[in-house]
Amino acid sequence: MQSINNIVIIGAGNLAFHLGKAFYVIGKNILQVYSRSEGSATQLASLINAEAISDFNAIATTADLYIIAVADDAISEVADKLQLNDQLVVHTSGSVGMEVLSKGSNNIGVFYPLQTFSKLKDPDFTSIPICLEANSQLSLKLLKSLGEELSNQVQFVNSKQRKVLHLAAVFACNFPNLLYTAAEKLLEENDLSFEILKPLIAETADKVQQILPSQAQTGPAFRNDIKIMNQHIMMLRDHKALEEIYVMLSRIIKKQKDNEQL
Amino acid sequence: MQSINNIVIIGAGNLAFHLGKAFYVIGKNILQVYSRSEGSATQLASLINAEAISDFNAIATTADLYIIAVADDAISEVADKLQLNDQLVVHTSGSVGMEVLSKGSNNIGVFYPLQTFSKLKDPDFTSIPICLEANSQLSLKLLKSLGEELSNQVQFVNSKQRKVLHLAAVFACNFPNLLYTAAEKLLEENDLSFEILKPLIAETADKVQQILPSQAQTGPAFRNDIKIMNQHIMMLRDHKALEEIYVMLSRIIKKQKDNEQL
Repeated sequence: MQSINNIVIIGAGNLAFHLGKAFYVIGKNILQVYSRSEGSATQLASLINAEAISDFNAIATTADLYIIAVADDAISEVADKLQLNDQLVVHTSGSVGMEVLSKGSNNIGVFYPLQTFSKLKDPDFTSIPICLEANSQLSLKLLKSLGEELSNQVQFVNSKQRKVLHLAAVFACNFPNLLYTAAEKLLEENDLSFEILKPLIAETADKVQQILPSQAQTGPAFRNDIKIMNQHIMMLRDHKALEEIYVMLSRIIKKQKDNEQL
Repeated sequence: MQSINNIVIIGAGNLAFHLGKAFYVIGKNILQVYSRSEGSATQLASLINAEAISDFNAIATTADLYIIAVADDAISEVADKLQLNDQLVVHTSGSVGMEVLSKGSNNIGVFYPLQTFSKLKDPDFTSIPICLEANSQLSLKLLKSLGEELSNQVQFVNSKQRKVLHLAAVFACNFPNLLYTAAEKLLEENDLSFEILKPLIAETADKVQQILPSQAQTGPAFRNDIKIMNQHIMMLRDHKALEEIYVMLSRIIKKQKDNEQL
């Protein structure tokens, strides 16, 4: 095999959905979309000219690549059932080791796009880092070539590094979104629209595209402005959870400024 | 007075710097830049064709507007010394009430641009919300007209709401930057470049331009994926501060999902 052309997608969640569409757009032949839920399989399959299946035994054995894009704790079970010989099988998870695929095939790997996906918003794959791993040089080469058809940022990342990336992504994506939610609540209660914070959120994320975040910290905690911090803590007296966040993160900003180990 | 043309800027920090340049670009006449540090005053004044002064008594009494853009706890002291009659005096702070200006002049107000500023990066004022307050309808009208020459997002915001905005901005800007810093540290220790997280950070901020953050939460805590969370906590065992952040914010994501009061 010179390159990957025929693909089976196992799973029909957000990532399967966007990855399936992206492969279809670059001309790959998506043979099948498998999902336990026939509706989900059909929804994706109909968009990308694939067969929708919900019977695991109907999965074709002739594809070049099997992409397992299911919940983390279902990956090994799916792989165990695949029972292929040498066809390339990958999962798409940040936190699961490659080795859980080993009963599925002799050729295994990981194809992890480091991005947050939602059904409502089409991602631009060209700028999404794709983190690859495989158990042979040939598979790695095939995945690299496939990845580069989608994205300008293809990297080899081992299982240990990938887990660190996923943890770092929780800090860089999931946790900031909670803090945006805290801001949303505070504004809502005071008849202010979330609209007014959007430019600030955009600029804060844009700044670290150019300057490392450790060099970009600002705010009352960084300035050690105790008067303002006390005023803020007073304002949060009816929001115990937000007060806890405020106190802890302010303290850690000070630690970071003082070059203490976080 | 029909509109504000002649301006004195008191202060030469990040905000004074960018505001001074922005007013100069739209054709305002910046009479003077005052700073205790002659160097800072000169640096800004020379860019915007203004006189640099470091002697407070040399401040002209003939300007249409005096902008006090100094540290929060120095605002009232500066205002007290101004001793003007009816010339309009404003400060630019999110957290300080308008009334601290009352000894400076009979006409006072607030001109608060809700954005994070750094010397290295020129802001686009057209999209920055400018929050206004004044003690007379005439002053409010003059400030509104000035604000609209700079920005498409001019709003009237009273002192109480402005304090809430500033607090919300800490959650939406300063705290997310700390979390980006945490991610930076984790990557650095594992020979991974911060570069790889930039698209994720950009997309996370971009998503809430379209969807409210309370509707956009994802991640292991939101899915209640205990196995992954335990793995992450293990990985943070040498980073006590980051472990504390991880545990607390994960717990609060769960609360938010369960619609509990934050």
